[in-house]
Amino acid sequence: MRLAIAQINTTVGDFAGNSRKILSFAGQALRRQCDIVVYPELALPGYPPRDLVEKEDFIDANLNALDDTTRRLPSGITAVVGFIDRNPASTGKPLFNAVAVIRDGRRVSTHYKSLLPTYDVFDEGRYFEPAPRVLPAVVGGRRLGVTICEDVWNDKHFWRKRLYHHDPVERLGGEHVDLLINVSASPFSIGKLTLREQMLREIATELKAPVVYANLVGGDDCLIFDGASFVVDAAGNKIAQARDFDEDLVVCDTEEAAGDMRAVSGGEIESTYRALVLGTADYCRKNGFRKAVIGLSGGIDSALTACIAAAALGRHNVLGVTMPSRFSSPGSVDDSERLAHNLGIEIYRVPIRDLQAGYLRALVPLMKGRAPDVTEENLQARIRGNILMAISNKFGHLVLSTGNKSELAVGYCTMYGDMCGGLAVISDVPKLTVYQLANYVNREREIIPSSTISKPPSAELRPGQLDEDALPPYKVLDPIIRLYVEEDMKPSEIVSQGYDARTVEEVVRLIHRSEYKRQQAAPGLRVTSKAFGYGRRFPIAEKFHGGFPARKSAAARRGK
Amino acid sequence: MRLAIAQINTTVGDFAGNSRKILSFAGQALRRQCDIVVYPELALPGYPPRDLVEKEDFIDANLNALDDTTRRLPSGITAVVGFIDRNPASTGKPLFNAVAVIRDGRRVSTHYKSLLPTYDVFDEGRYFEPAPRVLPAVVGGRRLGVTICEDVWNDKHFWRKRLYHHDPVERLGGEHVDLLINVSASPFSIGKLTLREQMLREIATELKAPVVYANLVGGDDCLIFDGASFVVDAAGNKIAQARDFDEDLVVCDTEEAAGDMRAVSGGEIESTYRALVLGTADYCRKNGFRKAVIGLSGGIDSALTACIAAAALGRHNVLGVTMPSRFSSPGSVDDSERLAHNLGIEIYRVPIRDLQAGYLRALVPLMKGRAPDVTEENLQARIRGNILMAISNKFGHLVLSTGNKSELAVGYCTMYGDMCGGLAVISDVPKLTVYQLANYVNREREIIPSSTISKPPSAELRPGQLDEDALPPYKVLDPIIRLYVEEDMKPSEIVSQGYDARTVEEVVRLIHRSEYKRQQAAPGLRVTSKAFGYGRRFPIAEKFHGGFPARKSAAARRGK
Repeated sequence: MRLAIAQINTTVGDFAGNSRKILSFAGQALRRQCDIVVYPELALPGYPPRDLVEKEDFIDANLNALDDTTRRLPSGITAVVGFIDRNPASTGKPLFNAVAVIRDGRRVSTHYKSLLPTYDVFDEGRYFEPAPRVLPAVVGGRRLGVTICEDVWNDKHFWRKRLYHHDPVERLGGEHVDLLINVSASPFSIGKLTLREQMLREIATELKAPVVYANLVGGDDCLIFDGASFVVDAAGNKIAQARDFDEDLVVCDTEEAAGDMRAVSGGEIESTYRALVLGTADYCRKNGFRKAVIGLSGGIDSALTACIAAAALGRHNVLGVTMPSRFSSPGSVDDSERLAHNLGIEIYRVPIRDLQAGYLRALVPLMKGRAPDVTEENLQARIRGNILMAISNKFGHLVLSTGNKSELAVGYCTMYGDMCGGLAVISDVPKLTVYQLANYVNREREIIPSSTISKPPSAELRPGQLDEDALPPYKVLDPIIRLYVEEDMKPSEIVSQGYDARTVEEVVRLIHRSEYKRQQAAPGLRVTSKAFGYGRRFPIAEKFHGGFPARKSAAARRGK
Repeated sequence: MRLAIAQINTTVGDFAGNSRKILSFAGQALRRQCDIVVYPELALPGYPPRDLVEKEDFIDANLNALDDTTRRLPSGITAVVGFIDRNPASTGKPLFNAVAVIRDGRRVSTHYKSLLPTYDVFDEGRYFEPAPRVLPAVVGGRRLGVTICEDVWNDKHFWRKRLYHHDPVERLGGEHVDLLINVSASPFSIGKLTLREQMLREIATELKAPVVYANLVGGDDCLIFDGASFVVDAAGNKIAQARDFDEDLVVCDTEEAAGDMRAVSGGEIESTYRALVLGTADYCRKNGFRKAVIGLSGGIDSALTACIAAAALGRHNVLGVTMPSRFSSPGSVDDSERLAHNLGIEIYRVPIRDLQAGYLRALVPLMKGRAPDVTEENLQARIRGNILMAISNKFGHLVLSTGNKSELAVGYCTMYGDMCGGLAVISDVPKLTVYQLANYVNREREIIPSSTISKPPSAELRPGQLDEDALPPYKVLDPIIRLYVEEDMKPSEIVSQGYDARTVEEVVRLIHRSEYKRQQAAPGLRVTSKAFGYGRRFPIAEKFHGGFPARKSAAARRGK
């Protein structure tokens, strides 16, 4: 069987645009003599549509688009197209996450998703009813097992503990399928590619059938779908590979066990970088922004964000703004200007010294006699936020915020200050990874000034301030955050891995105590297995504090 | 049988505090000769614990608290206590939402929740496995049907379309129960009290058994639990009623069909007001804030917010700040001062004219020659936000934001400006309801100045600006928002109810287009059946726009 994976970049709710892509890729697949073309999950409505599916009009538009696409697909090829179906039963959730198998102008069969991920960023149990039954599609005498994303993630040989009680792949195996298709929207996270491949190789060998994995590509709000679709033969050998982080059409002949093999990113840092570029590009494009503005502090976070933005939007569409205060080091302006020069982006300079003095004057009647503290530090960050937002309002640039995951975890950031922005580009990137990405950006020539990379991290909000005055060194902080947030490890276990008990307690307390800041953060691109944002849902008012006894909270470090 | 409902106000993760309340109320119930005392849902861990339940330590602490509470509960009374249990099976979700029936120092039986709400603000399918079976508890020879919240919300006689395939109450009915207990955490929304009562009266008559409804009371982040627990006899007659919006212990004798009957709020406006006061009080208390600061504009939203804050925290703990700009009417300061005087709160005045001029000077090199627009309007709002945050940072007051639901729906608000704050007190209150609440506040004497109530709504960010220049009149806007957001009605249906088609389209487009602002809004107290916030999950990047064809977006009105 000769098949194509149409790895397209859909947009939620863009039925006309998604349908055009489906038709165009079907045409290409037909020209390459394919029997079947397979698209990613929910190709017609886009993924994830979230609560839009609760709108009757949205479901109607998706069904109308399916009818229209069915009529307009070329004859002579079978298309496997994701859509949302209604559940006519009087009990249960009202919708199905569905796939239509379409041939010669009509829908041959319809298949529903059995396993509905309801964890992390996934809310499918909120909307969808699981498939009442699982049957293969029969196309040209072949039996195709059609599964949707999570359906292949419950293999009893692969997982020690399973979230679901049955395995649709096992059921399809009992029906003797010639080929297993998986229609996916599996978001990128560091290391996930390998996991997917291992799992599907194992399934192929169990089923003794080739497996076609068609994944979505593109950024949708916080999520980045990496594509990297592939086909493995019945022995688990990869026989086709699509590009990652880009649209692609790959063709594969399962009888000949041969297909298109594209190169993919060379490692975790390269793939993280490309994920961030795609996520930024798509967030801007899908929201109608061509240009972005970034506050440049001279530090590594804003420098990296500017590089990602320039790669995503083109250097002419990125504006840097340096906003020195009386505490800024001379290096902060020089380094920002050097970065802008190296990168080829425009840079403005808006000193904030007078505004800072103006606020202090205005607040004198209230605050006279009080020692300077975090208040004055936050004011500077907020003045800068206001200036960036004014530029955004006047010229239509999207503000990109520049905070990293380490800061956001422990609340070392100012609400309405450096947290301002439409998209938080690196808010799921730990500080140590920021350094690795900066070195990756500089792999051929110096773009981020070496002085930016080598200087000790500082918020420069008071004289001589360094991050390490308030926080543990990042080589200690980052792994503690990873173990607590991504691995959900107990603090006592983290200590038993060799970290200082008091430091672990302090970091865990800070993570809990900063939840209120994160709930007002800009959407951030997700690149780890657990990002802050809607995939991590914590209460603000809670007295658990990671299991440590209650105590009077220390003064907030930055922000309130 | 003589039973008590212990309607307690728990705090998430405060195992020691929640346990103390459980023990104290058990003592009171025993002194009043009760056989049974029933607590709200998840009484030990607090509700909703959200992703805290994914922390092993949290589950351990809850199980330890259960053991400890079991040992310390007085003998001679049966306690029905909510907790979280582990699911030992190798498939399925790892936890159960559970209830322990405890008597004389040991757990007599354990009961699990069958129906797990996974919609709106509820995410229980994310964590919990449904009960594998449903059996009555046997206490002193009586058979008690123990259900948890949603378990009673799937009655086939009451609902036309049901979310779940089976009905645990029906199953318990088949086991002949003498009494049905429902352990709940049902959040307040306008009109819900009546619905609950109707539903449980019907269930009582079907079962031919009394029903005990023990509801949580208190504010937990966005949610306000109203309490108002009650008991109905086998004929559906109410025989006990607890207070709303306050802790309570009510006692009831099911044989004598008589019990404590407390007064509850007299109508929707009174109950909404009391909900907002409780929500504000508990958000502050559970997060360790004693004092609040509010920007007073002279308008009705900030005036109402100040009144709620004074009722919640005491007037000495509320600080008003008036921040006149060059566009503020003289009335805006006078009215704010009169409000502060009537309410007995302190008020500061921080003029922002100079700061406004300072920003414009700083931005001249970038913006010269550009006509004033929304940029300059937003700057004023953001200067005010900065000042409030500076006061918060310096003195530890929580900033309460004052925007209403109508503004938030259509994005008529400034990010990092008037949207600044730790809690958005009235962000789920439509503007017309704000007026009703203001009149309620003034029911005995004028607290909110009549000039504040009678003046046409204005943001006062440019000369002569009125809300109605940019938006439809609130008497048109509010119902359109309600029908689209709360009722999920199609735009075409809204038009068929008599609203102008162009106005409906404009409002629906604005609702979709403003999603990015709402995702950075402060948590807001929920008082309607559908609040913005984590119960309403929309994508930002989407091209559905409520089903209207794509078009170039109009200039943002306020904020970006």
